[in-house]
Amino acid sequence: MSQTVRPKENVKLLFQQVYDFVIDRIERGEWQSHDKLPSIRNLAQELQVHRLTVFRAYQMLKQNGIVYVKEKSGYYVGSKNYDEVSPLAMENPLLSVSGHLKNHLNEIHGIPSVYQFSQALIDPNLLPNLFLSEYVKEVFDSYPKLLGTYSSAQGDVELREVLSRYLLRHHNIPSTSDEVLITTGAQQAIDLLSRSFIRPMDKILVERPTYSAAIDIFRQHGARLLPVDIQPTGYDLELVEQLMKLHKPRIFYMNPTFHNPTGYTVPTSQRKRLVELAEQYGCLLVEDDAFHDIYFEGPPPPPLFTYDSEGWVVYLRSFSKYVAPGLRICAVFARSPVIRPLITAKSLADNGTPLVNQKLFLRCFESERLQMHLEKLRTALQIRRVLMEKGLAGAGFSWVTPNGGLNLWVKLPDGLSANAFLEECVRHSISFVPGRICDPLGEMSSWIRLSYSFVNEEHIRAGVGRLVEIAGAMTPGS
Amino acid sequence: MSQTVRPKENVKLLFQQVYDFVIDRIERGEWQSHDKLPSIRNLAQELQVHRLTVFRAYQMLKQNGIVYVKEKSGYYVGSKNYDEVSPLAMENPLLSVSGHLKNHLNEIHGIPSVYQFSQALIDPNLLPNLFLSEYVKEVFDSYPKLLGTYSSAQGDVELREVLSRYLLRHHNIPSTSDEVLITTGAQQAIDLLSRSFIRPMDKILVERPTYSAAIDIFRQHGARLLPVDIQPTGYDLELVEQLMKLHKPRIFYMNPTFHNPTGYTVPTSQRKRLVELAEQYGCLLVEDDAFHDIYFEGPPPPPLFTYDSEGWVVYLRSFSKYVAPGLRICAVFARSPVIRPLITAKSLADNGTPLVNQKLFLRCFESERLQMHLEKLRTALQIRRVLMEKGLAGAGFSWVTPNGGLNLWVKLPDGLSANAFLEECVRHSISFVPGRICDPLGEMSSWIRLSYSFVNEEHIRAGVGRLVEIAGAMTPGS
Repeated sequence: MSQTVRPKENVKLLFQQVYDFVIDRIERGEWQSHDKLPSIRNLAQELQVHRLTVFRAYQMLKQNGIVYVKEKSGYYVGSKNYDEVSPLAMENPLLSVSGHLKNHLNEIHGIPSVYQFSQALIDPNLLPNLFLSEYVKEVFDSYPKLLGTYSSAQGDVELREVLSRYLLRHHNIPSTSDEVLITTGAQQAIDLLSRSFIRPMDKILVERPTYSAAIDIFRQHGARLLPVDIQPTGYDLELVEQLMKLHKPRIFYMNPTFHNPTGYTVPTSQRKRLVELAEQYGCLLVEDDAFHDIYFEGPPPPPLFTYDSEGWVVYLRSFSKYVAPGLRICAVFARSPVIRPLITAKSLADNGTPLVNQKLFLRCFESERLQMHLEKLRTALQIRRVLMEKGLAGAGFSWVTPNGGLNLWVKLPDGLSANAFLEECVRHSISFVPGRICDPLGEMSSWIRLSYSFVNEEHIRAGVGRLVEIAGAMTPGS
Repeated sequence: MSQTVRPKENVKLLFQQVYDFVIDRIERGEWQSHDKLPSIRNLAQELQVHRLTVFRAYQMLKQNGIVYVKEKSGYYVGSKNYDEVSPLAMENPLLSVSGHLKNHLNEIHGIPSVYQFSQALIDPNLLPNLFLSEYVKEVFDSYPKLLGTYSSAQGDVELREVLSRYLLRHHNIPSTSDEVLITTGAQQAIDLLSRSFIRPMDKILVERPTYSAAIDIFRQHGARLLPVDIQPTGYDLELVEQLMKLHKPRIFYMNPTFHNPTGYTVPTSQRKRLVELAEQYGCLLVEDDAFHDIYFEGPPPPPLFTYDSEGWVVYLRSFSKYVAPGLRICAVFARSPVIRPLITAKSLADNGTPLVNQKLFLRCFESERLQMHLEKLRTALQIRRVLMEKGLAGAGFSWVTPNGGLNLWVKLPDGLSANAFLEECVRHSISFVPGRICDPLGEMSSWIRLSYSFVNEEHIRAGVGRLVEIAGAMTPGS
């Protein structure tokens, strides 16, 4: 765009273009920290715009902390980390209505690093890739026209039937294939739920901390978030009831089993009570259950969905965390009044998850080998968790050992802030998720999420070693 | 749900459940047209709800035309086609906020029929399926960990580079891979644009008629639609300018090449002028170009995007209409200020189109065989079009022969309404798209869209024959 900026009627867009022009130069490293920016007069001439336009862009750059002013000298590139002042965060009154739109987790994942403790994904090397490739070939032999065929918006009926039978067999929950919707990942399911059930200014309950992308999605839909602390023992149910009574939240978004990011699991007794509260106060419980099968000490308690007879629970089961995660298949189970608007929302959003992904998933999901593989996967992940815990031990970090899932939720040594720590770690090619972005209140600055699932054992050993060293160097008092 | 309806505090939800209970009985055929419904007292007793709750549900059923009242007798099941009064259309104040949310096209596609002239999709039998299956195997041999690997939210960089080079080579449009976003089908692109650039009550320009799902998506985001007629010669540009001047629409959504549903193509001279108008009035042109390569009489004019030097055109190129459509790959090309919010919206919507779909698409797209195949495909589709035109000729239908695309836009014989005609055709296992759902004003009731791309030659012959017969029988005066 920058080379094409020319005078136009609307000054608002022009100043955005000038703003972007400067950002581009800084991003590409052409203009470095503490370099002087061109004078307003010169840049206006170069870009063929009015000087006021450049002035307005510079003022906005200053407000956003990207440049600073020296009295009687001019504007200079700041030293602040550019990533923190994404241009999306700025007000752009003409074009985008999504100035507030952010995906914090995605920004963290964009950081290139060798020791990626930020990714709560399973290392592709832990998957039975050769067998999966074989399955792909079998599927295409069975369905030669698969690349030319569309799915219905709700999803392949064969897959939906298999999944509803699975739910009956494994959790004794009766459901029909009509009560299943296939989405492209659990995140899309959260988005569709928001589209269908959240109006701007609606209140919803979320755990504190919670899944960062969920916070961003709910905010995008205009929701006001009411935090409910999650502890190793579950929630404070009296508080939950008070909040439901007082605020009539439409949704409680929860991840009660090997919770992300903490790894905590809500006990069975609380699960039953939560369903009662949901019925009593008319609050939809959105139970995100991505890690159900990733347990180390025996299976977790039954899903809340088990106790639901009135249709107040929506059950998100993203099997694809371990069954061919690249296919991005999630199943949403819900009763008719909830599933119907979700299907319509799905049909508007993308008209159905591609059939090829569903058929490939089905083949993988149904294979006996996959169930055998799951055993091995649990062991491999547990080894990685133990390795990470050993590396962290005795260095002032604290955490509760999770019985499943992919993450450690770690309190930093006293006096160490996650922001400064992350900045330093990134310099040493280590990434993790700062607690702040998992907190609906934006606090929890002394907590971090370390995922042990994506990085191999050698890298866990080396990366955690470095991380502990860096923390030590940053807390000399300890 | 129905069997679990029990008293609860919130009468609003209960009445919805009673409503659904009745709908379910009718859908399952337990209660037939003109059957008497249970009395309010009896149903209230059966469902253990208050009589007022049943009364309210019955009133709503009556309003929606599902039941009718006989004075001093009670409520009876109506004779109206149930499909037309989807329960989603009803107001459901407690639970769903998406009462207004509809996907009309999807409802039409849900009609089972042998002669599916409603599907603007390419018959899977016309695709080189054996070769496509081979490509799949090659891709999995090259990327054995594909099922375990995620894409970035923006899309695979290798694919984005290939597509931006394609645009340079074929249309002489320079772009970088940063200016490409991969979405799951063009429909998702329209949805992401709406999320990013449309606020409730914003005005946007749309063609009349236009793509039905686009109308539904824009409406879902609260847009007010300003129609611009599309003719075989293009638009009335003076009207377009007046509308832009007066209403300052944020977006003009257009499909100027082998337009859906009409097949018309906007001429080159208008394309240049439209880009000037967009710049002058600050209106984003969303150019949906799904049929560019499906031409019968030589290539169409260059995309509007060719003439855009200021970043006012967003170019949606859904190659996957003919390259392995089941993969649902669409490319969005736009300049930095537009593409950035779209990437964030995509990251929130589903965090990226699955990598496996992108890599498979890339392999198919790059194959020489596919380009050879495209020639054959054009011929096959033209044959089908001609066949359909022959079948319709001389029976009172009128249309303009399209030089590309997948559809005929057909005016019905005088006195025949599309609604009644569709109802009768569905009874004879023929489906098509009624013009009404393609019209932002909901009129055009004497037009229909017939797709010649999905049904084989034999079925076109037989189906169009039946259709002409039905029309003849319904317009005895002709």
